[in-house]
Amino acid sequence: MTDCKTKFVKLFDSKNPFILESGKCLSEVKVAYQTYGKLNPEKNNAIMICHALTGLAHASGIQKCIENDNSSNPDLLKEYSTQYLNKPGWWDPLIGKEKVFDTEKFFIICPNILGSCYGTTGPTSINPETGKNYAGDFPVITVRDMVKLQKSLADFLEVKKLKSVAGGSLGGMQVLEWAVMYPEYVESIIPIATSAGHSPWAIGLNEAARNAIKNDPDWNNGFYSEQPRKGLELARKIAMISYRSFESFKHKFGRNRVYENDNYSAENIFQVENYLNYQGNKLLKRFDANTYITLSTAMDLHDLSVNRKSISETLSSITARTLVIGISTDILYPASEQKEIASHISGAEYAELNSIYGHDAFLIEFEQLSRIISKFL
Amino acid sequence: MTDCKTKFVKLFDSKNPFILESGKCLSEVKVAYQTYGKLNPEKNNAIMICHALTGLAHASGIQKCIENDNSSNPDLLKEYSTQYLNKPGWWDPLIGKEKVFDTEKFFIICPNILGSCYGTTGPTSINPETGKNYAGDFPVITVRDMVKLQKSLADFLEVKKLKSVAGGSLGGMQVLEWAVMYPEYVESIIPIATSAGHSPWAIGLNEAARNAIKNDPDWNNGFYSEQPRKGLELARKIAMISYRSFESFKHKFGRNRVYENDNYSAENIFQVENYLNYQGNKLLKRFDANTYITLSTAMDLHDLSVNRKSISETLSSITARTLVIGISTDILYPASEQKEIASHISGAEYAELNSIYGHDAFLIEFEQLSRIISKFL
Repeated sequence: MTDCKTKFVKLFDSKNPFILESGKCLSEVKVAYQTYGKLNPEKNNAIMICHALTGLAHASGIQKCIENDNSSNPDLLKEYSTQYLNKPGWWDPLIGKEKVFDTEKFFIICPNILGSCYGTTGPTSINPETGKNYAGDFPVITVRDMVKLQKSLADFLEVKKLKSVAGGSLGGMQVLEWAVMYPEYVESIIPIATSAGHSPWAIGLNEAARNAIKNDPDWNNGFYSEQPRKGLELARKIAMISYRSFESFKHKFGRNRVYENDNYSAENIFQVENYLNYQGNKLLKRFDANTYITLSTAMDLHDLSVNRKSISETLSSITARTLVIGISTDILYPASEQKEIASHISGAEYAELNSIYGHDAFLIEFEQLSRIISKFL
Repeated sequence: MTDCKTKFVKLFDSKNPFILESGKCLSEVKVAYQTYGKLNPEKNNAIMICHALTGLAHASGIQKCIENDNSSNPDLLKEYSTQYLNKPGWWDPLIGKEKVFDTEKFFIICPNILGSCYGTTGPTSINPETGKNYAGDFPVITVRDMVKLQKSLADFLEVKKLKSVAGGSLGGMQVLEWAVMYPEYVESIIPIATSAGHSPWAIGLNEAARNAIKNDPDWNNGFYSEQPRKGLELARKIAMISYRSFESFKHKFGRNRVYENDNYSAENIFQVENYLNYQGNKLLKRFDANTYITLSTAMDLHDLSVNRKSISETLSSITARTLVIGISTDILYPASEQKEIASHISGAEYAELNSIYGHDAFLIEFEQLSRIISKFL
């Protein structure tokens, strides 16, 4: 695998502030991003990859060092990023030489999204007006804000047109907004396991996760010195259950215990509990609680119809070639929701990952994804 | 609707203690129960109704007053029970004159389960050894303990044989144990939306709910003076999401807000969030946090195979006539799990509630339940 590097660029500053959809303003915005492959002379071979809730710019290759730009909070960025060091990117099996997103043909861009804690401006960034982290003061942002910032990055990189935009979950929400906000700029889109307007069921789960964080006394309205550990861990557990499926847990853990025997001790937990504890703790080390609240709120606000026509009419207005991908066992963004999205977009293709992994299948079923996407591209 | 009354009986005391499956001992156990209809002279027309996690003995009729026996904690029992006053029981459309569980024909018994906070001995009961509530000291109990106590009640009521045992969710677990523990005594069973061994997915959700309670600083290892409010409310929210379905939330709430306009305020919540807050608060007023932990742990421990042959072999040993009922949209106890249960029980019938309500359909789809059960009975 090739080495990769996270780059940083400040795209907005006090003279040219970033205006959010809400009307509020960020007086300084930078973007962390990775690119793979080369922009062709016509500057029209770029593909934008959009990551999900706890994702980052490191989509492909092996990251050899954690860079920093000086305007972010270097300690936190380093802390959160460390576990990606020497590891392949989250969509590495899809992005690279002779892979489906072929870096010999395409110029692939993966920006860290607005509001994240992996280098793009977010709650852990230094607020230039106070000299401290935004923390609980970071404003409400939307998926449209994320996409608007990605467009500024594409302009900065001199991209003339995007061959495609692809992503799953929160990434897929960005994909749909790309097609609606910049119809001339986007040739094709690949939204995966996502929403055109976040469902009340998914909102309920996000709200439970935010509750878990805010119930933690260490939360302190977002102005914590130590992370609200128990709260963030529980938030991740709740989410993790919804990312998987009944069948995948059954297959992976059954009713196995951490220790054998002693069936009546509340201390001798089931392996599934152990796994969820592990996942909670793993996220705690690599993610920030305010960021979780900021990004999950943006997901809940996601709605193609806001200040536009209805969701179905807005989907109908999409002109980009479209491949919608659903997952057979996804309970969070069910296949029925993906079919509904595809049904409103003129000429859209629909394909389904046949998987027991539930929502997370878009980060696991690489063979099926490669087959489906290569046909489309 | 006819009036109903909760009765209380002390079935075990220090001279005749109740031995739990774990080997531990409860030196005093009483049961709160309701009955409807009359036991026939042959004493073989009884039907046992088993309630779910937060349920109680009040399954049918209108409860006109909250009775007490002196050995329970009268204040808590009154507090939790008050909201059932003047309300019909949880399965009232199924139990009564000319209803599917016809009180002209059958003698219906609905006991409050061991470990509950509605009058049967549980964490809110007075521990006779200390004179205080058990609270965090209440021992780990199992579904088998619940059923063993129900059998003692049936004996006390001089029932010779049960025509049927029916219940959903945790109630269904009791139903299956009845058939295995007392094969000679049980003519037929109707397990609904339940497990033969609690699935890791359902365990994960229960564990998240218990985490929510235990993360609350007011929890204090179960020895709280005030309930861990935020924790118990969040536990209920998590559970509530899993009791319903993507489609039912979509249908009921869509993306509607509590207030119109102001799309970018984190304060202006979605109706689904409001509903979950309401449900959390409603449970807080009628249920006890230690009880939630005790009963949800018993669910997780539920496993027909413990100290027996495998789950499938144990199911195969069931001789009672069996009707297994699944729910088309249940994600917590999926229809596939119910079909699997039915497939192992010789001659078992399987029927499915076609419903958008998810797991809770067994408390909602009364017409379908009546039709299906009346054919079977």
